[in-house]
Amino acid sequence: LIWRGDDCRVILIHDPDLPGFCRVIWNRHVSEMSELTYGERDLLMNLVFAVERAIKSTMEPFKINLASLGNQVPHLHWHVIPRYKDDAFFPNTAWSARARETPAAIIGERQKRAAELPKAIRAAIAELA
Amino acid sequence: LIWRGDDCRVILIHDPDLPGFCRVIWNRHVSEMSELTYGERDLLMNLVFAVERAIKSTMEPFKINLASLGNQVPHLHWHVIPRYKDDAFFPNTAWSARARETPAAIIGERQKRAAELPKAIRAAIAELA
Repeated sequence: LIWRGDDCRVILIHDPDLPGFCRVIWNRHVSEMSELTYGERDLLMNLVFAVERAIKSTMEPFKINLASLGNQVPHLHWHVIPRYKDDAFFPNTAWSARARETPAAIIGERQKRAAELPKAIRAAIAELA
Repeated sequence: LIWRGDDCRVILIHDPDLPGFCRVIWNRHVSEMSELTYGERDLLMNLVFAVERAIKSTMEPFKINLASLGNQVPHLHWHVIPRYKDDAFFPNTAWSARARETPAAIIGERQKRAAELPKAIRAAIAELA
């Protein structure tokens, strides 16, 4: 757990292929964005974009992927995923078939950066207030 | 093309497996949500959620999937995808390996509903104004 508020929480997924993969989860049970009020949606998306900014500056990825899927766990949550041209799935999605193995040294360097993420994400969220 | 504004446009993807699949595209070239101002982001997400509401009421899916990936085409766009328990990829993502064939009669029924989407999406966007 990186951060917890009344409505949402942010967690760092320790994904062995995709260091820095974070999830923003709505605490109360709802399935779809359209079940939230405008204010709730705004709050959640501001958090998602704060996490995006922190990942962008800390992880320096080629691209950020954002997704709210929830087919398997219909509890509203957002994936925020730093992507690199040499990651296991690039250029396909993080849920696509594996395309390659990323060298362990590169994964290790990204894991080091990901260790800085909790602090960067908390700072980005503090700036929203 | 379903709808075009100064900043964004909405298109209906004629996906043979996933009738009702729509895309909301930012007209100007940017790669990431964090490159938009707060007002631009708010405008884009309000459109995405208007499309979600129209898809939900018109297509009656089991779940809506939202994603901004852009690894292959780094031009900011959102996928808004109605998902059903019997669709070709469920419960995995629309980019995952195919899990089954959906009966043609069911696809046909969903294509009929998707034909109503442009009108429903324009109405949902008109309500934003």
